[in-house]
Amino acid sequence: MTLPFGERLAQAARAVGAPVAVGLDPHLERLPAHLRARFEGLTGGARRAAAAEAVAEFDAQALQAMAGRVAAVKVQFAFYEQLGAPGFAALESTCRAARAHGLLLIGDGKRGDIDSTARAYAAAMLDPDGPFGCDAFTVNPWMGFDTLEPWLERCRAHGAGLFVLTRTTNPGSADLQRQGSPPAALRVAEAIHRLGGELRGASGLSSVGAVVGAQTPADEVAALRASMPDAWFLVPGVGAQGATPAQGLAGSRADGLGSLVVASRSVLFPSRPDPAFERDPSAWIRDRVVGFAGSLAH
Amino acid sequence: MTLPFGERLAQAARAVGAPVAVGLDPHLERLPAHLRARFEGLTGGARRAAAAEAVAEFDAQALQAMAGRVAAVKVQFAFYEQLGAPGFAALESTCRAARAHGLLLIGDGKRGDIDSTARAYAAAMLDPDGPFGCDAFTVNPWMGFDTLEPWLERCRAHGAGLFVLTRTTNPGSADLQRQGSPPAALRVAEAIHRLGGELRGASGLSSVGAVVGAQTPADEVAALRASMPDAWFLVPGVGAQGATPAQGLAGSRADGLGSLVVASRSVLFPSRPDPAFERDPSAWIRDRVVGFAGSLAH
Repeated sequence: MTLPFGERLAQAARAVGAPVAVGLDPHLERLPAHLRARFEGLTGGARRAAAAEAVAEFDAQALQAMAGRVAAVKVQFAFYEQLGAPGFAALESTCRAARAHGLLLIGDGKRGDIDSTARAYAAAMLDPDGPFGCDAFTVNPWMGFDTLEPWLERCRAHGAGLFVLTRTTNPGSADLQRQGSPPAALRVAEAIHRLGGELRGASGLSSVGAVVGAQTPADEVAALRASMPDAWFLVPGVGAQGATPAQGLAGSRADGLGSLVVASRSVLFPSRPDPAFERDPSAWIRDRVVGFAGSLAH
Repeated sequence: MTLPFGERLAQAARAVGAPVAVGLDPHLERLPAHLRARFEGLTGGARRAAAAEAVAEFDAQALQAMAGRVAAVKVQFAFYEQLGAPGFAALESTCRAARAHGLLLIGDGKRGDIDSTARAYAAAMLDPDGPFGCDAFTVNPWMGFDTLEPWLERCRAHGAGLFVLTRTTNPGSADLQRQGSPPAALRVAEAIHRLGGELRGASGLSSVGAVVGAQTPADEVAALRASMPDAWFLVPGVGAQGATPAQGLAGSRADGLGSLVVASRSVLFPSRPDPAFERDPSAWIRDRVVGFAGSLAH
């Protein structure tokens, strides 16, 4: 019997010494030059096929650098979808590789739909014998909390997890997330707490978590934590997007768990040309990952 | 120069005599028996590959039945994603076939994300030389209206369109869509009106539309129409989901345009075993499409 995702994540964070994940966002234009050379100059389907192979190879090196050093890898679906069918083939291969390295696999696709469509998405993303076999997936609650039920079914059946988009920190995030009283984001938090109640493990952390941007103001983070004391927060925004490690950890519980802090571009790609990255991307990423995990260690 | 999507949709609806679309939702378990036989009994990747081929073949027959009879086809991404890479290959082929038949192609994937991720999604879905080449795409506004900007860029560049998830009619739809004052759905409507202002064609209809479920109460439909007089409504819920054609058209403008009514399961699959469907799915679907379009004709 697979343990609930929330518990597996707690164990993985303890094992690596920090509640840290890497976001695998394979930006084509930032891949090492020898990989870019495989598709630059091509167009259309030929370019997509060659780029997908380059991405799969980059991912393999990045995953090698992360294995044993982070609790989870978050795979951004958009960068694979833009490559069509070969992109999805690369994504399938990257998902297999992440699992083979013993990394927890979080699919970041922010899906949200109703009825049979939601069931198709949930099966696609979370079924162990499906194409991706993610341990957890990011979902969008805008259509209503009933739309999470097909995902929860999969969580119960497979020990999988969810991260529900709760509070982001882009300029327009207040347009809908802060409307109403209580604000909509707090309503989402209350739903997460209610839905996660049956999916808690020994650590007390549940398998239904929340996406909470690292730059969320401290008073809002505290209110969100109070509303969902058992939820994992998936916290993007540290590193390239400007938040500090301390901001990333602001929502943690007293035991140091509860916030899974994600770095993406800042550990995957140099911000300016760097011969060391070109020579050995895996070693370059490994050093960044070690530094990032160290900045968040208990 | 491609006309704006809103205008192309107006022309297509006039050409077929009704503002009507079919939702292509290829439910595996409802395909004709001879197509199901290709994958039933298989498992894992072999099953997904065989099922994807069966879906592509079914889609080809369904598109044949729709060509010249509906203004647009709405392709539900979830049913392809559940089949992984071969599913995306089938989706690419179905999208090409829809365009070849002269049907406007609406991708229904309800994506929503920020920054470079939103740009990757928008390029994937709307770029004419991308894998899918959709004329329009459904998007989720929960993260904020700034997240629509990368999509709008593509609308300006390619004459493409958007349908922003505004008001759905599933049981939990009020959880977030009706929070606040004005209710969140009306805020979305106001944003749609503002963002679509620059993307209007000769008919006055814009390329930034709204998803509004057919079972939305009449007073809410009227309020939504008043807030976004130039927006196309994409209206699911007629047919298998129980709404009447009149409900589907409730948000139309005085010229009879403005609501694009979508039927999916009810025109694609018989509700009980039907030898005529098994014998000739394309003819069976054609008859249902003709009946559906007739029920909505001006």
